[in-house]
Amino acid sequence: MTDQPRVEFRTAPERYRHWRLAIDGPVATLTMDVDEQGGIVPGYELKLNSYDLGVDIELYDAVQRLRFEHPEVRTVVLTSGKPKIFCAGANIRMLAASPHGWKVNFCKFTNETRNGIEDATAHSGQTYLAAVNGTASGGGYELALACEHIMLIDDRSSAVSLPELPLLGVLPGTGGLTRVSDKRHVRRDLADYFSTKAEGVGGKKAVQWRLVDEAVPRPRWDETVAERAAELAARSSRPQDAEGIVLTELRKTRDDGTITYHHVEARLDRDASKVEITVKGPPTDPPAGIDQAREQGAAFWPLAVTRELDDLVLDLRTNETELGTWVFRTQGDPARVLAYDELLLNNKENWFANEVLHYLKRALRRLDVTSRSLIAVIEPGSCFAGSLLELALAADRSFQLAGVFEDQGPAADSNSGEPATITLGDMNLGPLTMSNGLTRLQTRFWGDESGYETAAKRKNEALEAEDAADLGLITFAPDDIDWDEEIRIATEERASFSPDALTGLEANYRFAGPETMETKIFGRLSAWQNWIFNRPNASGPDGALRRFGTGQRAVFDRKRV
Amino acid sequence: MTDQPRVEFRTAPERYRHWRLAIDGPVATLTMDVDEQGGIVPGYELKLNSYDLGVDIELYDAVQRLRFEHPEVRTVVLTSGKPKIFCAGANIRMLAASPHGWKVNFCKFTNETRNGIEDATAHSGQTYLAAVNGTASGGGYELALACEHIMLIDDRSSAVSLPELPLLGVLPGTGGLTRVSDKRHVRRDLADYFSTKAEGVGGKKAVQWRLVDEAVPRPRWDETVAERAAELAARSSRPQDAEGIVLTELRKTRDDGTITYHHVEARLDRDASKVEITVKGPPTDPPAGIDQAREQGAAFWPLAVTRELDDLVLDLRTNETELGTWVFRTQGDPARVLAYDELLLNNKENWFANEVLHYLKRALRRLDVTSRSLIAVIEPGSCFAGSLLELALAADRSFQLAGVFEDQGPAADSNSGEPATITLGDMNLGPLTMSNGLTRLQTRFWGDESGYETAAKRKNEALEAEDAADLGLITFAPDDIDWDEEIRIATEERASFSPDALTGLEANYRFAGPETMETKIFGRLSAWQNWIFNRPNASGPDGALRRFGTGQRAVFDRKRV
Repeated sequence: MTDQPRVEFRTAPERYRHWRLAIDGPVATLTMDVDEQGGIVPGYELKLNSYDLGVDIELYDAVQRLRFEHPEVRTVVLTSGKPKIFCAGANIRMLAASPHGWKVNFCKFTNETRNGIEDATAHSGQTYLAAVNGTASGGGYELALACEHIMLIDDRSSAVSLPELPLLGVLPGTGGLTRVSDKRHVRRDLADYFSTKAEGVGGKKAVQWRLVDEAVPRPRWDETVAERAAELAARSSRPQDAEGIVLTELRKTRDDGTITYHHVEARLDRDASKVEITVKGPPTDPPAGIDQAREQGAAFWPLAVTRELDDLVLDLRTNETELGTWVFRTQGDPARVLAYDELLLNNKENWFANEVLHYLKRALRRLDVTSRSLIAVIEPGSCFAGSLLELALAADRSFQLAGVFEDQGPAADSNSGEPATITLGDMNLGPLTMSNGLTRLQTRFWGDESGYETAAKRKNEALEAEDAADLGLITFAPDDIDWDEEIRIATEERASFSPDALTGLEANYRFAGPETMETKIFGRLSAWQNWIFNRPNASGPDGALRRFGTGQRAVFDRKRV
Repeated sequence: MTDQPRVEFRTAPERYRHWRLAIDGPVATLTMDVDEQGGIVPGYELKLNSYDLGVDIELYDAVQRLRFEHPEVRTVVLTSGKPKIFCAGANIRMLAASPHGWKVNFCKFTNETRNGIEDATAHSGQTYLAAVNGTASGGGYELALACEHIMLIDDRSSAVSLPELPLLGVLPGTGGLTRVSDKRHVRRDLADYFSTKAEGVGGKKAVQWRLVDEAVPRPRWDETVAERAAELAARSSRPQDAEGIVLTELRKTRDDGTITYHHVEARLDRDASKVEITVKGPPTDPPAGIDQAREQGAAFWPLAVTRELDDLVLDLRTNETELGTWVFRTQGDPARVLAYDELLLNNKENWFANEVLHYLKRALRRLDVTSRSLIAVIEPGSCFAGSLLELALAADRSFQLAGVFEDQGPAADSNSGEPATITLGDMNLGPLTMSNGLTRLQTRFWGDESGYETAAKRKNEALEAEDAADLGLITFAPDDIDWDEEIRIATEERASFSPDALTGLEANYRFAGPETMETKIFGRLSAWQNWIFNRPNASGPDGALRRFGTGQRAVFDRKRV
């Protein structure tokens, strides 16, 4: 499993191997029925509804499609198609055989998908209901934890459990510990006990300890699930008669050196360990209204560009781990970007605009937790305005050209002849929160309210480099003479540093200020998990993860660290 | 450096090798002048005012003594006795040669000491002023960051820097990243740039970027430091004429199997990988008033028991890494514990009572971040009340005997003949906050306000096991028949688990709810740092930490994780 095949994140329900999606009016049922032979890489069988990255890619696709293609759906029942087992979590053989980076990236993606489930519940009126019709262990229980309401079948054998620690010597890797304590408010000592009992807890005790919301005897199961689904649906504000759009297959050309979509292009520079990403602004003015936007469907620019960016981030994160720096450029008309933003923000109450906004928010959050150095390069002809300015605000550093390129003075073509500008818009002042609950602008000015106010007042003004630098909106503003050299040094230097230390640095600096369950999962829990994954006690030849299922006990270095 | 000598944390100013403490009325000056030959273990020289655990043990001692022995001190000037260099941070050769666990434990202790400096500033009216009279790099700058006000000498060569990432491939390990962003509010992109520039930033730019508070030219240095110290002293609420107490040498007997103090005893059970700790309640009733308490000085029970506990935690953490479970018992009269608590709480405004309370708070916080499983065993004759109940609330699990031991019925001695009780007191309802800003009781009931209210209403009531269990204050309440077996299983099972996974589990479950700078340092930053420390890119034979100073560049696996 050292030579991973290139992973593809695009899929569609008709190609699912592991999930069935059935829709009955306001209630969708998403049934997990994992194909044992359907592992994304060879070498293991996906027994007992255990999952790997491939299974989760389908889940992510289903969650996305439900939001865009099925506005009528108000409750999503997540259940199992196997008897007696809901889901056994991440496949252990897959984890044991995977290199460190694969495990970490896999956990990150699964975390994002579970956060997406909570996001749908919180912001789309699509509430997830876990109908745990058999044992849910490890990642299986964590999947249930991402749902708003957890029903456990009460049959004297089904239980929920987090057996990672006692069986595998690692932690639950998909937010389990954080959700047990901070979402479900399980008392810490009970949580501690629960997380050391491989067999888990079922029935009334699981309810009493808040691990699940209700335990339902088998005879009343189907009827109670339907009842609960209907109740949750009734609470939703989803429109009754809206028509969904189709998330058509994303068009993408991929070879070893480039990844090309309609609005996004990436050039992979293996010699310099970096990727040059260009995002193009809208090719046309926005449609007249939100209904016309919905009619454009997947071609509507904000949705199209978000889908492309989302796929690119996932592709690069998984398939191009040695390209440690991503350089972002934009190209196009800032006014058009702002016009699209305005259309969306003026129609926030519309289900479709709402979905596009939240999707953009989630895609940008993926960037924030991406273990790559992000650099924004703001040149003449770019359109870092409003929603696209978020790319610069998400970057670890940004460079904006002061003045113009001398060899492309005002006489050159109209785009590149004017100095580069950035423009703050309403999109930067609220809707696109990071996982810490703040906007990128608020996070940037954390603890500096007057700096924030001063910058925000300049909304809708095209700011040239010196102004932008004075306002603290960009990092550096070199002129034509220094431009190439400064950017070259910044990227070369970045490529010379320890990739691990950069990952840690970025994970800390990107999240100033408050913490949420989401930042705790990515910052605290994942960091500990990564550490544990990397220790011989888990991943060494005699470690628990490698010894699991061999009949041999793990050998531990008993020293506490 | 594999066979570490046993580390002793007790010291006193007359034995310092690395610091000078001078007191001039309300201003104390703490001068770092590290003895190059004074490393705590052989194998490296402490050049350029770099430090190791031994240097920091003295700093901790000085910070403690200033609070208790010198109530007249209102400003502490932290400065260097070496020309041109303030402090070069943790010694690299020491780090490179240290086993993983030593590095992690060292960082934990240095972090606690810096948190203690901030605690003195916030709660004792002893404000720390960093007089950075030469370059402060890495841990040197982090030490300054713990101070309330940072002055940097402006001499065209002195700078502050965090060169860990570019030079060593690790992170600043003592809170640097968190304080730069969350305390000093340095903008994230400037912080990113700063943390990659090995040579750092000095002069006006350091002020502009908020890295320091002022840059002062050499000719005006002494005078400006004195001025600032006087200003900070004037803001203090410390008493003018109070008399300090002497922190007399802690009496301690230590052999391979036991550690014995006056009020605390520890039995090291190497076969079972655990330590049995017994804390004894007050041997006498409290003194009549707080003045009499102060006259008792270091013998005043709450102070004495806190010092002993504090030393024990440090000793065990550093010297007994294979003893993974600590079992806490108490012995004594709960009413007396509560009476001492009351004396302290009734005199919160008194400087001495204030110091004892905050010291107890800090000592308990050490427990919270200790990477050992903590179990409280509540038996007849114990005194888990008020301040000592915090030990049970800090534990990962607690067991309280329901009823009495059958072979020690009411006819046996008076202590053990009555059922075990626990008692909530005012000490559990406010003053002893954890590093997340909540009390242990609030953290326990995080998200369950009615549970909290119900329990808090039973304040001052001696609660037997069943009541305590119903209220959610203990984990399990076995009776005599199951008692030994349940506790044996719990501790044996704990000893069989992966120590790393337990550390991660405990670090996550102990801190439900909000995060603070302190929890971010211990939870997020430290977890990342531990991961990085453990990676070949830092600590492998070709890693940056090992290659530093050899003239050879580190070889990195470039894959991002």
